[in-house]
Order: sequence, then structure tokens, then C-alpha cells
Amino acid sequence: VKKLKNITVIGLGLLGGSITQASLRAFSGVKVIGFTHRASTRRKARAMKVASKVVDDIGESVSGAELIVLATPISTFAEIFEQIRDSLPAGCIVTDVGSTKVQPHKWASKFLPKDVHYVGSHPIAGSERRGVEFSRDDLFDGASCVLTKTGKTDTKAIERLKDFWKALGCRVSVMSPSGHDKVFAMVSHLPHLAAACLVNAASEEALGFSGSGFIDSTRIASGPVNIWSDIFLTNAENSIKGLDGLIRELGKVKETIEKSDRRGLEKFLEKAKKKRDTIIRRKFEKKGFLS
Amino acid sequence: VKKLKNITVIGLGLLGGSITQASLRAFSGVKVIGFTHRASTRRKARAMKVASKVVDDIGESVSGAELIVLATPISTFAEIFEQIRDSLPAGCIVTDVGSTKVQPHKWASKFLPKDVHYVGSHPIAGSERRGVEFSRDDLFDGASCVLTKTGKTDTKAIERLKDFWKALGCRVSVMSPSGHDKVFAMVSHLPHLAAACLVNAASEEALGFSGSGFIDSTRIASGPVNIWSDIFLTNAENSIKGLDGLIRELGKVKETIEKSDRRGLEKFLEKAKKKRDTIIRRKFEKKGFLS
Repeated sequence: VKKLKNITVIGLGLLGGSITQASLRAFSGVKVIGFTHRASTRRKARAMKVASKVVDDIGESVSGAELIVLATPISTFAEIFEQIRDSLPAGCIVTDVGSTKVQPHKWASKFLPKDVHYVGSHPIAGSERRGVEFSRDDLFDGASCVLTKTGKTDTKAIERLKDFWKALGCRVSVMSPSGHDKVFAMVSHLPHLAAACLVNAASEEALGFSGSGFIDSTRIASGPVNIWSDIFLTNAENSIKGLDGLIRELGKVKETIEKSDRRGLEKFLEKAKKKRDTIIRRKFEKKGFLS
Repeated sequence: VKKLKNITVIGLGLLGGSITQASLRAFSGVKVIGFTHRASTRRKARAMKVASKVVDDIGESVSGAELIVLATPISTFAEIFEQIRDSLPAGCIVTDVGSTKVQPHKWASKFLPKDVHYVGSHPIAGSERRGVEFSRDDLFDGASCVLTKTGKTDTKAIERLKDFWKALGCRVSVMSPSGHDKVFAMVSHLPHLAAACLVNAASEEALGFSGSGFIDSTRIASGPVNIWSDIFLTNAENSIKGLDGLIRELGKVKETIEKSDRRGLEKFLEKAKKKRDTIIRRKFEKKGFLS
């Protein structure tokens, strides 16, 4: 596999700024270009030296790149693909870090030239914070990263992209876009919706008494609103299915409480506890620590 | 206020063992007796020196106490009140650390002698772990503790109990049992049910991809099943109301996604984010750090 020498990251928020920094750390002699349309972010990014060069011309930013990573909200991808398509070098790899993958694949096949290789990426890293000021070169250490491919995706591009994320510290797996969106609706998108609903269901007075249980279980509800709106709207069908499933489970446990059915209630809670304890145990086994 | 010299804790799990240790740390010269019916727990508790004395006779354990703290599952309170009622010194204070308070008050007025003072306690501390092996003398440092009283509760007993929890490191507030149960249904019991439902709604395959968002938002689902069954069953009406409210909110957000109503979705998420960010900010202001 050829060593990456030119990487461009579009969007310098928490993820984008971390990708540029992690790339500088991982690849000696690499040239990492960061693009952001916001002047204030460019100033911060330059002051933090997150990239070899921070530019304000998106076409120029990609013209010499072997790998281009979109780290902007999903709803901007179509427009960005159109903006960069004529400047992309033949044979380059384009990826993104959006949390849904069906829609990016659709836009890529619609807007990107046939001689560039699109592969989806979803690094499971980040936090409820945002902005280049929170970016860091070790954000991906020990994180999972899911790559997505279709039957048409170039095999060598997948391998190169795998190596890229591994060099940044990730464990990499590969899925189909639709498989990805189904799975992440359950473990990421639905918990976010549940967290927002928990907060909205509680009165201000009650919230004053919240302890670490509430704080932890709703942490994700403090995430950036536009990013998450994009996620739910580009994974609408699975989000709706997930909501229906959650409402069904809430109805089941409600019935056990209404009927004072201690055995049924305990079985329900025990099932959840066992399933969750299994995840935690597997994470320990795999990595030696929790992420 | 008279200094406490004799404290008895019934039940030596995470909370009970932490109360005995914190009491030994807080009150010089105090005699702290711990009771547990389990021989294996008595052995561990003695090895860890969590109390001045660990005994296996519940009547004997309370016979010289000024303050008796029940730290067993809520469903055991009625039976324990009956077991200790004839051994309680006149004028002593009886409290508990159960997470619901209406039912304990009912049992106390039914089973406890008229010459002892019952006040409810709910220290907001602990974790999803259990057992005396996780107990520690600083579990209550910086924690909130809600005391519950009715119109009949002895005012001096409330003051003494306030001083007790403050000495253990708590910020103390006082509420009615029904006010308490309403508030904690929203910020504690409902999030737990939601967490269990999120886990049960997800497939095993999906769970393999869970990241820190899912892990954090479902942490409480790993809590002890019998303790939590007691909580939901002794706070059934508020739990059911909470579930109905949560199902309503999930329906609202589902509608915005179904209709591709970006504005409505963003408003919903923005409301949750603002409410939650406000809690976090208040916690910072109050304490200088998060709990």
C-alpha cells in the first residue's frame, strides 16, 4: 500500500480538526490541508496548527489530494461534492465522517466524477462538544470506525482507507450503507432521541434534582442540533422504526407496573441488565479498557 | 444539637457499608453497628472494618441506637420495622435510604412505635454496582440528600438527621414524600426504564457497535434488578405517568421526522439541549464541579 502524502479535510470542527492533527501525528512528511469557510475557525485552526495549511478556497484545497475527508454536517455533502468535483484529481479517494451512510453514498454516485473513489467512513468518536478548540490528535485512539461500501466500491480504495483509519488509532470494520444505518439507528440515533425526550418530558423543577443517572443518560441530548437533525432526517425510516420499537418496549414495561407484575418486571429488567453487561464485558475483553 | 454516639445501619451493601464508614470518619468516638443477615457479607464487612461492630441479631443491633438507618431494598422495610419495633429505644430516629418515599412513610406509621421518630432519607449517591466491596467512606461527599417529612414528623428529629447527612458530606433538602416521588419519577425512575427499554429494543448484532453514547445513556440499566423493581412498584402511579409522558414526547419527535419537518425537529432538539445545558451550568455554579 502506497503511503499517503496529501490529505485534505473539509470542515474543521471537533472531528475535522482531530483528523488533521491525528494525520500529522500518524504520517511523517504528510501534507495535510484543512478547509473551512469560516474565517474565525481558520484563525483558530492556524493558531492551533491543526494542519500543514488552512485554506479558504475549497477547490484549491482538494486539487492535489490523494484522500479527501468531508467533516461537515451531512446536509452539506451534496453541495460540497458539486463544488469540488471539477478539482478532484483522478483516482483520489473521497470519504466523509457522517453518522448516516445511505444518503452520502447516493449523493456520491450522483455528484462525484466516475474516476474518483468514494467510500463512506463513520468513526465512532467525538463528544457532545463541538468546535476546533476541542479537537485533539488522539481522538481516534481505540475508537471503532465503520467503512461502508457498495458492490461498485473500489477494493483498493477500501484497503487504503482502512490503513488510514488504522494509522489514526481505529479498529476498522466494513459494512453496507443500509446495514450501517440500521445498526446505528438502534445504538446511536434512537438513544439520542430518547435522551431528548427524557429531558423534554421532565419539568424544570424536577430537573433541579437530577443526579448522575439523569446527567449521564441524557448527555447526548446536549449534542449539536443541526448535526443531529441531519442524522435523523437522512436515516428517517430506521429512526421511525426505532422509535416504534422503543415505544413498544415502554408499553411492555408499563403493563408490568400497572399489573403489579413483579415477576414480569424483574424479567424485563434482568434481560436489559444481562444484555448491557454483556456489551461491557466484551468491550473489556477486546480492548482492556472501556470506550 | 446533641452529638450522635450510637448509630445502627441495617443492610451492608454499597450504601449501607458507605454510611457506616462515612459515620466513623465523621463522628469521633461514635459506635457504629452494622447488621446484615448474610454471613458472607458479615465476613467481608468485618474484614473491611466498615463498622465498630458487625452483628447478626437485628433486635440487638438497634437496642442502644439513637439513629437507625435502613439500607436494604424497599420491599424489606415493613418486615424489618416489625422485627425491630420492640427493641427500639424511645426517642430514637429511624430512617432509610430507599429511592421512593411515600410507601416507607406509610409502613413507618403503621409498624413503628409512636415514641420513635421516622424521617425519610434519599441520598442521591451510589452507582450501578452493588455490594459492601464497593462501599467507601467518601461516597456522600458533595452528594444531594433529600429528607422527607409529613405534617406529623418531629421537627427536632429532622434537624438531627439533617446534621447527620451534612456531616457525611451531603447537601440536604426537605420535601414531602409525595413531592419527592413525583420529582424522582422524572429524573431517576423514568430514565432507568428508558435505558432498559433502549437495551431491550436493540438487537444483539446492533449492540456490538455501541459506542460511548449508548454505553453512557444505558449505564443505569445495569443497576440491581430487585432494588429497581421495588422502586417502580412502590412508585407505580408516577412511573406510569412518566412513561405516558415519555411515549408522548417520542410520538412528537417521530411526527417531525415522518413529515421531514426540519424546523420542528430542530426546535424539539434545541429545547432539550437548552434544558439540559441549564442543569449542567447550575451544577457547575453550585459546586464548582459536576457530580
